[in-house]
Amino acid sequence: YELKADPCGFCLILNNVNFSRDSNLSTREGSDVDCRKLEKRFRALCFHLLTRRDLSAKEMVTELQKLARRDHSALDCCVVVILSHGCQTSHIQFPGGVYGTDGIPIPIEKIVSYFNGSSCPSLRGKPKLFFIQACGGDQRDRGFPVDCDSHEDEAPGGSLESDATPFQPSPGTVDEPDAVASLPTPSDILVSYSTFPGYVSWREVLSGSWYVETLDAVLEQCASSEDLLSMLLQVSHAVSAKGSYKQIPGCFNFLRKKFFFMCK
Amino acid sequence: YELKADPCGFCLILNNVNFSRDSNLSTREGSDVDCRKLEKRFRALCFHLLTRRDLSAKEMVTELQKLARRDHSALDCCVVVILSHGCQTSHIQFPGGVYGTDGIPIPIEKIVSYFNGSSCPSLRGKPKLFFIQACGGDQRDRGFPVDCDSHEDEAPGGSLESDATPFQPSPGTVDEPDAVASLPTPSDILVSYSTFPGYVSWREVLSGSWYVETLDAVLEQCASSEDLLSMLLQVSHAVSAKGSYKQIPGCFNFLRKKFFFMCK
Repeated sequence: YELKADPCGFCLILNNVNFSRDSNLSTREGSDVDCRKLEKRFRALCFHLLTRRDLSAKEMVTELQKLARRDHSALDCCVVVILSHGCQTSHIQFPGGVYGTDGIPIPIEKIVSYFNGSSCPSLRGKPKLFFIQACGGDQRDRGFPVDCDSHEDEAPGGSLESDATPFQPSPGTVDEPDAVASLPTPSDILVSYSTFPGYVSWREVLSGSWYVETLDAVLEQCASSEDLLSMLLQVSHAVSAKGSYKQIPGCFNFLRKKFFFMCK
Repeated sequence: YELKADPCGFCLILNNVNFSRDSNLSTREGSDVDCRKLEKRFRALCFHLLTRRDLSAKEMVTELQKLARRDHSALDCCVVVILSHGCQTSHIQFPGGVYGTDGIPIPIEKIVSYFNGSSCPSLRGKPKLFFIQACGGDQRDRGFPVDCDSHEDEAPGGSLESDATPFQPSPGTVDEPDAVASLPTPSDILVSYSTFPGYVSWREVLSGSWYVETLDAVLEQCASSEDLLSMLLQVSHAVSAKGSYKQIPGCFNFLRKKFFFMCK
């Protein structure tokens, strides 16, 4: 993807810090640190920043839809960052959900869907990047010692072998006419998660979340030379090496090309 | 990740072509083409090949568990390829399911879980790669024209602005003692899907599936110089440009470093 426009696109940050009492969700101390870092970072990367703080689920949806309905024709990409509490959800595409300040969760896949090729025509073929700092669920991962011996009590004899694989031609499966230059509806989407689905995501009061702190540092150091997936590998590597409760960020990638940020 | 061992790891290919009558699943013509290509390719990439054809769900699980229970101590990675019919599933981590020849689906996330840090100690910290050629569901994607005008009837005035974000320090969230060198349980996993969750995946009788054909070609051309994520971007790019019903491959990446195959 080549970014040429300046600004290259909108960057919407939804930063939920304070939650309603009924929600039983704690105040997300440190999230403002995350938010300020990312505002500064994405502004430096030539994005038009939009930040909203403490929105209910309904307000979040409204903001997201408002962004999706904007005219992105003159822009080259779009970024959505969500900083909130999150939960495990059952879903068919992208895992997880994020909470509004009212304690109502919004599935990530719903958020992403506002920006796909059908819903957001002016972003068709353009990269849509989502960064989700939120828990993926309640599981705390203590990890496993890396240096431990890997011993297996069962090493089955190598009795598996290739089956013969005769070739059987028959009528075709692909027979649709009217080919047009087109892209799949869900293409050009990347969702970067702070943690593996089902697991918690760690945040420190003074320095913010592990994920955002690391993401910001890697962007600072590498955005001018490396592509996004390579940088996200570095983020995963650094975050997974932290702390004693373990966390590994990951991404769901439906981009089609390497993505390089625009650095002035 | 540095691959040094030779073979570098096992590559298990589960190739389901013929399904029981009750399953109502059609014969997967062309899958043997896929299977032969991948056997040849991964053998060239220094894997120890294991291929099984036409397994029921239970037999698939048995083979996968057998592989996970092997001693991988002397090996550097592990590859699992599944060629079958697939379905949309509700899940918490990795989307989708693949069918046994008896028409019983196995969730991808169950398959992946056999190989995580807890279940498969001798692959801890080592890359575990899953390649899934299967439908993600029934949705047929006609895509959208790429050259179409992107016009939006609503371009809301730019009235969004940054909220003030006061900083609120308070007691820490991360306070676990006993840090040990450890890695998150679900780390070092990559699942490459032939199609977006919920969508169909196309296969041709003579040349096999779009995804495997493209994956094989990209591996042939680039495995000696490019890392896996970069190659998968190329696969997505090429497959998404094909045909009239649209398909985009993607991946769920929890690797921590660039992965390069070993090429002799």
